[in-house]
Amino acid sequence: MSTNQLDKKSEAWSALFSEPMSELVKRYTASVFFDKRLWLADITGSLAHAEMLAAQNIIGASDLADIQRGMAQIRSEIEAGSFEWKLDLEDVHLNIEARLTQLVGDAGKRLHTGRSRNDQVATDVRLWLRDEIDLISDLLKELQIALVDVAEKNVDVILPGFTHLQVAQPVSFAHHLLAYVEMFSRDAERMADVRRRTNRLPLGSAALAGTTYPLDRERVAKTLGMEGVCQNSLDGVSDRDFAIEFTAAASLCMVHISRFSEELILWMSQNFCFVKIADRFTTGSSIMPQKKNPDVPELARGKTGRVVGHLMGLITLMKGQPLAYNKDNQEDKEPLFDTVDTLKDTLRIFCEMVGGQLNPATGQKEGGITVNAAAMEAAANKGYATATDLADYLVKKGLPFRDAHETVAHAVKAATSHNCDLSELPLAVLQGFNASIEKDVYECLSLRGSLNARNTLGGTAPAQVKAQIARHRTRLA
Amino acid sequence: MSTNQLDKKSEAWSALFSEPMSELVKRYTASVFFDKRLWLADITGSLAHAEMLAAQNIIGASDLADIQRGMAQIRSEIEAGSFEWKLDLEDVHLNIEARLTQLVGDAGKRLHTGRSRNDQVATDVRLWLRDEIDLISDLLKELQIALVDVAEKNVDVILPGFTHLQVAQPVSFAHHLLAYVEMFSRDAERMADVRRRTNRLPLGSAALAGTTYPLDRERVAKTLGMEGVCQNSLDGVSDRDFAIEFTAAASLCMVHISRFSEELILWMSQNFCFVKIADRFTTGSSIMPQKKNPDVPELARGKTGRVVGHLMGLITLMKGQPLAYNKDNQEDKEPLFDTVDTLKDTLRIFCEMVGGQLNPATGQKEGGITVNAAAMEAAANKGYATATDLADYLVKKGLPFRDAHETVAHAVKAATSHNCDLSELPLAVLQGFNASIEKDVYECLSLRGSLNARNTLGGTAPAQVKAQIARHRTRLA
Amino acid sequence: MSTNQLDKKSEAWSALFSEPMSELVKRYTASVFFDKRLWLADITGSLAHAEMLAAQNIIGASDLADIQRGMAQIRSEIEAGSFEWKLDLEDVHLNIEARLTQLVGDAGKRLHTGRSRNDQVATDVRLWLRDEIDLISDLLKELQIALVDVAEKNVDVILPGFTHLQVAQPVSFAHHLLAYVEMFSRDAERMADVRRRTNRLPLGSAALAGTTYPLDRERVAKTLGMEGVCQNSLDGVSDRDFAIEFTAAASLCMVHISRFSEELILWMSQNFCFVKIADRFTTGSSIMPQKKNPDVPELARGKTGRVVGHLMGLITLMKGQPLAYNKDNQEDKEPLFDTVDTLKDTLRIFCEMVGGQLNPATGQKEGGITVNAAAMEAAANKGYATATDLADYLVKKGLPFRDAHETVAHAVKAATSHNCDLSELPLAVLQGFNASIEKDVYECLSLRGSLNARNTLGGTAPAQVKAQIARHRTRLA
Amino acid sequence: MSTNQLDKKSEAWSALFSEPMSELVKRYTASVFFDKRLWLADITGSLAHAEMLAAQNIIGASDLADIQRGMAQIRSEIEAGSFEWKLDLEDVHLNIEARLTQLVGDAGKRLHTGRSRNDQVATDVRLWLRDEIDLISDLLKELQIALVDVAEKNVDVILPGFTHLQVAQPVSFAHHLLAYVEMFSRDAERMADVRRRTNRLPLGSAALAGTTYPLDRERVAKTLGMEGVCQNSLDGVSDRDFAIEFTAAASLCMVHISRFSEELILWMSQNFCFVKIADRFTTGSSIMPQKKNPDVPELARGKTGRVVGHLMGLITLMKGQPLAYNKDNQEDKEPLFDTVDTLKDTLRIFCEMVGGQLNPATGQKEGGITVNAAAMEAAANKGYATATDLADYLVKKGLPFRDAHETVAHAVKAATSHNCDLSELPLAVLQGFNASIEKDVYECLSLRGSLNARNTLGGTAPAQVKAQIARHRTRLA
Repeated sequence: MSTNQLDKKSEAWSALFSEPMSELVKRYTASVFFDKRLWLADITGSLAHAEMLAAQNIIGASDLADIQRGMAQIRSEIEAGSFEWKLDLEDVHLNIEARLTQLVGDAGKRLHTGRSRNDQVATDVRLWLRDEIDLISDLLKELQIALVDVAEKNVDVILPGFTHLQVAQPVSFAHHLLAYVEMFSRDAERMADVRRRTNRLPLGSAALAGTTYPLDRERVAKTLGMEGVCQNSLDGVSDRDFAIEFTAAASLCMVHISRFSEELILWMSQNFCFVKIADRFTTGSSIMPQKKNPDVPELARGKTGRVVGHLMGLITLMKGQPLAYNKDNQEDKEPLFDTVDTLKDTLRIFCEMVGGQLNPATGQKEGGITVNAAAMEAAANKGYATATDLADYLVKKGLPFRDAHETVAHAVKAATSHNCDLSELPLAVLQGFNASIEKDVYECLSLRGSLNARNTLGGTAPAQVKAQIARHRTRLA
Repeated sequence: MSTNQLDKKSEAWSALFSEPMSELVKRYTASVFFDKRLWLADITGSLAHAEMLAAQNIIGASDLADIQRGMAQIRSEIEAGSFEWKLDLEDVHLNIEARLTQLVGDAGKRLHTGRSRNDQVATDVRLWLRDEIDLISDLLKELQIALVDVAEKNVDVILPGFTHLQVAQPVSFAHHLLAYVEMFSRDAERMADVRRRTNRLPLGSAALAGTTYPLDRERVAKTLGMEGVCQNSLDGVSDRDFAIEFTAAASLCMVHISRFSEELILWMSQNFCFVKIADRFTTGSSIMPQKKNPDVPELARGKTGRVVGHLMGLITLMKGQPLAYNKDNQEDKEPLFDTVDTLKDTLRIFCEMVGGQLNPATGQKEGGITVNAAAMEAAANKGYATATDLADYLVKKGLPFRDAHETVAHAVKAATSHNCDLSELPLAVLQGFNASIEKDVYECLSLRGSLNARNTLGGTAPAQVKAQIARHRTRLA
Repeated sequence: MSTNQLDKKSEAWSALFSEPMSELVKRYTASVFFDKRLWLADITGSLAHAEMLAAQNIIGASDLADIQRGMAQIRSEIEAGSFEWKLDLEDVHLNIEARLTQLVGDAGKRLHTGRSRNDQVATDVRLWLRDEIDLISDLLKELQIALVDVAEKNVDVILPGFTHLQVAQPVSFAHHLLAYVEMFSRDAERMADVRRRTNRLPLGSAALAGTTYPLDRERVAKTLGMEGVCQNSLDGVSDRDFAIEFTAAASLCMVHISRFSEELILWMSQNFCFVKIADRFTTGSSIMPQKKNPDVPELARGKTGRVVGHLMGLITLMKGQPLAYNKDNQEDKEPLFDTVDTLKDTLRIFCEMVGGQLNPATGQKEGGITVNAAAMEAAANKGYATATDLADYLVKKGLPFRDAHETVAHAVKAATSHNCDLSELPLAVLQGFNASIEKDVYECLSLRGSLNARNTLGGTAPAQVKAQIARHRTRLA
Repeated sequence: MSTNQLDKKSEAWSALFSEPMSELVKRYTASVFFDKRLWLADITGSLAHAEMLAAQNIIGASDLADIQRGMAQIRSEIEAGSFEWKLDLEDVHLNIEARLTQLVGDAGKRLHTGRSRNDQVATDVRLWLRDEIDLISDLLKELQIALVDVAEKNVDVILPGFTHLQVAQPVSFAHHLLAYVEMFSRDAERMADVRRRTNRLPLGSAALAGTTYPLDRERVAKTLGMEGVCQNSLDGVSDRDFAIEFTAAASLCMVHISRFSEELILWMSQNFCFVKIADRFTTGSSIMPQKKNPDVPELARGKTGRVVGHLMGLITLMKGQPLAYNKDNQEDKEPLFDTVDTLKDTLRIFCEMVGGQLNPATGQKEGGITVNAAAMEAAANKGYATATDLADYLVKKGLPFRDAHETVAHAVKAATSHNCDLSELPLAVLQGFNASIEKDVYECLSLRGSLNARNTLGGTAPAQVKAQIARHRTRLA
């Protein structure tokens, strides 16, 4: 067994270099302290590569066995926390390869045949991200189920629906929650689309031009469960679309989280008191003894900025780069890793905050959102939420909608000056605005009458809401 | 026929309002000067809505006929440029509705039955964007074909492949162009994904809660060629995911354009002289008489910032908004419109700049990119582009790759000090680095030998490049 | 008088060009349709340049006179709307120069001596932006005054101060408004800083390297009221820091506007009813007759995204550009122009929305924000806003703060379970938490007692608030 | 000494809370693992606060002595690495306060009198950032000096000045470097402006409304070397302008770094070979033995995206937040910290990469940028860099500039067709373009003649460049 050039890397990169990298530069350019989280993907990818090299007779069967043995040991060392990560070896790839060569000698040095760090790192990140997308998809499903669970219990709870944060029309609280189910289901769709474009194999692109060894790239792709092979080596090593596209999808998901958070914060404010979240999702104040603050939704709203910032950073990174690989690309990892962490943590915590925790004793979930139906309904009674129903009533009496709209505006003006609701105006007064109004008008002026009347596909009538819930149950089963 | 309340909008919004909107506020909040481009989508959507209202007996057959007649006239007026757009009527929707009522009276006032501007605008934007996505997809296809055409003529042209802008390995110029075909094909995939999520119908969500009229939303969706119906009315009026997702996809496409532009600019620089673009894509200088500047790629690179800025603007817009519709959403339009315009113009101009224009006389395209193969090959001869081939040669002689790598580093060092290429070192000198080197080494040290050797899937060998071209031809047919 | 080469620009850029620019390229690269707003700066800069050329004997006195005469006519033509802007002439600079040469012949052709479009456009943008900054500074001042005016009338109005949107402590509504005065005064500071760096002269940098003519750049700077001369010609033509810095300052100002808007929207919501804005700043709904929506603050909140998007676009634009001028830079203008427009419109409308309009009859401003003091005070009575005061009371009795904090938490818990405020607990009950509590505790438990007690610099006590108002009056005088 | 409530924080936040924070929430909301870097600012701020409390007789002299003693010990513990940071205690503030109370009992519990974490954290971040700005300002100065040093040695080295990456006019390499000195000097100006707005004291704002204790805030400001006191308590606790403004200034600085990096990367490419950077700033390739890659400038260019992303994240964070403090604000720290780290590391490494390291033996700096003057001058001889000089020559003969410009375009066309430089055209040929051309034309057609001729303020003539250098030397002394 010959000497291991990687062991001398702290002295000089190779014979071409007249001096070692400066310490400052090592720290500036090294990635090992954040990319070591790719270790399992790196080993998995290397094993698939080695297995193919052996199958193609590029390396021998004993080389393969050595590599497999060495990698098994490295895996145990890393899992046990005893693996020594070295700054001098720059990144996860060289750290693992150097250790492999220490352990198994020349076979280790043969592993890099027909590949480059450029295609290796692209492969590792894709493998890692694919699996993270699967975890995120599971969490998105769990969150949808939690929302549907809460919705199912609140179909008949009336919430003031707002537009412009002004009372608009009564809606079912369940219907409101299901709007978020729609958003998170779109997020899941997007994740599936990103996964498809992520799960393609760059390995075999080598540095940028492909390789002179008779690789079987399709075999490696199959071993790794990938859906295809990157068809152009220059693109294979330089493409970071999947990272940007994932971060864009994550940003949209965080935008949805931020909207829901904004509402939770509003709803928990003393002027609303619509819901409570469990104490374990809140904190107190160091100075104000009465405080119980909705820290989790606030922080989640804030973390939206973080993820959007990463998206901006990644786009800026790639803009204007000539082909093929440039060192700039190393900066793709930290934003991507942090986006994954932030999104997973946030989804996980929202699952529990909304739906509660399983109580093993009862088999029931407990400690999710607490709904104050009375406060919601009281609020819906402000702001003339059934004015549109009166207009619709008049249309059914034959008025063109635009005229009915104007008539009701006059009625609202009158009610406001009497400081009462439309439903509190005497019939005679209402008839003053339009003679065709009859006693049955009061039904459509009630919150529940209004709710029940919106009984078309996608509407807030309890029947529709139940149909939506049933559809989601089937979809999420 | 009763009076038309919309005609009095300049006096007050409705009976509820004590004063007209201030002129400053009108200009600040009006959207008609930019959203009037939605006019055709607005009319199309209204006609589908009216047709369904009639089918459901919500309006009468004569109302429908009136609406159709009125809309036909409005369409002619807009196409003829004689339609008078009024600031007082705020937006495209009220402008068209007000004119319709002028033309056909009460039927016009009945059109808004069961809908709101909230679901109407969401429908219009989706319809419009869907058709724009189709145009963009066509342009993406056209650009890919132009690149494949140029590639096909340059399979054997050798370009220095760069990593870190340092000469790395020789690549086929065709192979390099096909990397961009991969990028633009992913862009097309993403556009198809966005289209699917855009092409869903919010109409029938009304203001936020659905409507009291027995609408048949599936019928409207079918009439409009949409793939489904937004299943939740609150989400239907407030969702702008499709706009953000489209702008994210457009940003990625512009990032690709910016990378290609960066390379064109480099390649046209006097120190490269690899390509020329036709004079009609360049401009001169007001002061320097010798200048011919690559304005188009530079501007395209710059416009990437514009589109990315729109993406950031749209995300910022939606972050933290409570449900359902808020006026903030009106700000979705200008960035979306400008993104579409910028992307279409850029793709169109790149199609012609790359592929040239059809000369009707010859039936051939002329005036695309001119390739200077000699300059490319001369540049590939700098920088020891075949050093990896020498390492691979040694591996085939039995050296582990890492050792071969270090051996070649010594050889490169020697060649550098002699100021010559590796292929210019005498055999004896090469054998001094490794005794197993034989005469056949010079074949692998040639650019063309190196190129031909990278003959695995995705590699730069001409055989592989031709296979890629054939695949793209089939795909794009 | 010789022929005018600019008149033939539609045929070819110069003798070097074999074909005219394509129509598509003209539209893609031309800037005249947006940069024509720089016309006055362009003429002003040209006159200062010509005056110096004459003073330095680079052109003759009659040339100067011709140029002055021509420019006077062009100015009238533009002001009258009769100037014909031509796409073939690309931008404002060539349009004006070509017209000048039409009008005055060779003198017009001499104007461009010793300058280039590169330094000319940089000068024009700086001159224009400097004046816009002055307008913005005036508006920032006006807005601060409007806020101080409203504050002055509301010193004793008690608002529930929120942290985490939970009731925290009572604050003076005036104090709350003055927080925004602080923000807008920092914005004004930043504008002054940007102005200083904007108001420097690039003219004389020529294309990139300076010029061979004996220019007197200091003289031109003085004529134009600029504070200095760009000291390096390469930097002079390529620097766009001032545009980015301005847009960053504008973004911060819009962030402040967005925060204020968020509060206005909350405060106008039926669950708060703290304030009203005049009807002329609101709009109705096309479907819901009762609606009066706070469109202006919502739209302003939305426009924050627009300005932030421009900032991101500009940074992306400049990132990674090699020196000196590149065509990418042309993309600096539209985001900068739109930022200026958006910021000015928003500030102007907020000035009036907050402070109202001058009624010439009374000499008073009318129609600003209407304050509902009763609703604010009622809301402050929820949420144990004086709990901290009780803790402070106990500290004054000798308890360490942390112990007092915990004691009060127990008291709040008790009050919550009795569904009453702390001030409604009987003395005996309070003494149960700490024996040192005496009858005077009720004073500190009142909202007004709490307010008055925060009487240190920057605190909310009316005395402090009045001091702040006086300080602002002096500063803004 | 009573029990320490903070010791029980893991059980419940206070008596008001029915359950402990969940582990997931603790990790999600805790900041101690990143905000512990504020420890010195936290202790410094607390000592200044305590000293004032004692001076105002709010706490006793012995309390102050206890606090000072405890803090001294905590400081040693942290410096020694023996301080135990606890997740249960959320952040740096509670960790230090809890330890203080362990060490000194009730005095520790008195420290928080009259303050809140809201004003405490704002104070800590400002103190910390102020000192970091000072370090950054020093580095900016050092980098300017390094650039001026290299410039001074290269005043007479001729570089092809580019616009649009096309050869434009010859410039002094020193002049080119001095363009970056201008940029970094503006960055330093901006840092000074941000420092002024950062160095103001929020302490004493308490939770949001000020405090009931008779604090002397001016005294604390003076003790801490701050330039003023935040005048409004609501603004004091919620303002994060300084963080955004700093990050915007850092982004601009990184944009300058990215432009310089782009040029270094170009210049090191084999087609340029204008400069070399020392080997210790480069790395090799795992596959290509000949590679020496400019990793540092590439990574710096990439890190621009990172900092810009942080700016975007921070703006998104603050947009639309109601007053006063919200938990979202906690997300201000990581982007700010990372921006500071990235900027400092990048500036430090550029100082050495440009200027080299001090060799203690010689007292000289060694190992900075190596300039290849011959390659630069050879490149300047391509592209008709002196064409403008010929136009200027003709102007001096009486032609209007525009006519001269067109005449030279014809001459360049002729030279191009002869494949020679303008200076290689025979006099007779030149006279064919304009009869007034005489023999002295060849002087102005030489690179050096062109360089020397641009001798006005800011121009590239060596005399001007030397004047610039002298000015910078004085300024930076």
